[in-house]
Amino acid sequence: MCQLLGMNCNVPTDIVFSFTGFAHRGGRTDTHHDGWGIAFFEGSGVRHFVDHQAAVDSPIAELIKRYPIKSTNVIAHIRKATQGQVALENCHPFVRELWGRYWVFAHNGDLKEFAPILHGPFRPVGNTDSELAFCWLMQSLREEFGDTAPAMPALRAALERLVAQVAAHGTFNMMLSDGTALFTHCSTKLCYVVRKYPFVTACLSDEDLSVDFSQVTTPDDRVAIIVTEPLTTNEAWTQFAPGELIVFVDGLPQ
Amino acid sequence: MCQLLGMNCNVPTDIVFSFTGFAHRGGRTDTHHDGWGIAFFEGSGVRHFVDHQAAVDSPIAELIKRYPIKSTNVIAHIRKATQGQVALENCHPFVRELWGRYWVFAHNGDLKEFAPILHGPFRPVGNTDSELAFCWLMQSLREEFGDTAPAMPALRAALERLVAQVAAHGTFNMMLSDGTALFTHCSTKLCYVVRKYPFVTACLSDEDLSVDFSQVTTPDDRVAIIVTEPLTTNEAWTQFAPGELIVFVDGLPQ
Repeated sequence: MCQLLGMNCNVPTDIVFSFTGFAHRGGRTDTHHDGWGIAFFEGSGVRHFVDHQAAVDSPIAELIKRYPIKSTNVIAHIRKATQGQVALENCHPFVRELWGRYWVFAHNGDLKEFAPILHGPFRPVGNTDSELAFCWLMQSLREEFGDTAPAMPALRAALERLVAQVAAHGTFNMMLSDGTALFTHCSTKLCYVVRKYPFVTACLSDEDLSVDFSQVTTPDDRVAIIVTEPLTTNEAWTQFAPGELIVFVDGLPQ
Repeated sequence: MCQLLGMNCNVPTDIVFSFTGFAHRGGRTDTHHDGWGIAFFEGSGVRHFVDHQAAVDSPIAELIKRYPIKSTNVIAHIRKATQGQVALENCHPFVRELWGRYWVFAHNGDLKEFAPILHGPFRPVGNTDSELAFCWLMQSLREEFGDTAPAMPALRAALERLVAQVAAHGTFNMMLSDGTALFTHCSTKLCYVVRKYPFVTACLSDEDLSVDFSQVTTPDDRVAIIVTEPLTTNEAWTQFAPGELIVFVDGLPQ
């Protein structure tokens, strides 16, 4: 099993604090040492970093902890290989383009007897069940809506239906974003917190580090953090229900 | 006009030396300060770094100069905006997936009255003529060969024909790689050198730096460097002819 971290905000925000705690699970406070990755949307562009080294040893992870890239949608993943060897092409998140937007996807879990027929333009490059599921989701969305992106209610309804079909094959905790919304689905384990005014001091579980968000935010800021296991010891994390899909837009669950 | 740098080798090689000189053209020794990017193939996976800061100021470029990522196919680009605003989504190289492989593309030049109809799955995310040309190349290859990658002779012949159609609209110096070969086309300015045994000491044009490649290579290594303008003062660079497409495989022009 791997671990997921997502962020969705109403103003571009850096993820340095949360990523610092999360990256420690990649080989130090946990056993997720088979690679890691993170993708940041900036406008419609994406910065995508993957590394098959453990996050705790990776010079690229070190850069991200020091360099505050500001983004409204971020997806990060640390990997413990269950299917597919340890290789760069198997590191999440994966990126594809659909409807002139980049889509970023990461998965935690394991799928059994999941072998959809891919007859469209989306094919896995690596050999994980996760990338296969992502390609099938992209193919299915394109089949359903053609060459034009649908409005949010139709997109959400389609994803709820499609994600449930994948989740019937095993554990499918996942995060998906097109840069405007963060779609999150829980099979077994996912939780979130919304940081908003009045901001408090948060203390990381995985490292002796705290930050007073009131010093680095404005009263209008709103930041949702979604993660496999709570990152902080003094915030009220909301657990997802099994089978629940939550869409975050502008830092709020919809 | 932008600048391009490509590397194709028979064994994974780091590009630190050549990138160091090239990155200086991004805002120091030249005026290419509207962003930059680089993509490295590692097996079938890709590391993709883009930044809309000048390469000379970018902490990510700094990381790449210090961290020797080894790759057999690399494409880098520094941008001086001619079409499309300065934004992350307009930074080259661009990446798409076709036939279960990643394809990486970068372009130097300017296209006029180039407005192909995109009716397939590849759409630009940004608003450059370059990404549009890349999407059209991907769409055209998929139309011609369907869902199965062709053998190299057929692929090369198709690309020669398609690239000539784009180049009829202006300047189309470009680099394209699927991780197995580096396809390079010159409209106006491109040159290459093949570094092989016996290796010599090379001196950068853009910085007071030299490296004795005989100390860091084996006699079997072969590295082709392809670039807009020669990077070193003491190597014999071969100029491309206008309209020439050269495919590099295992460090050799084919």
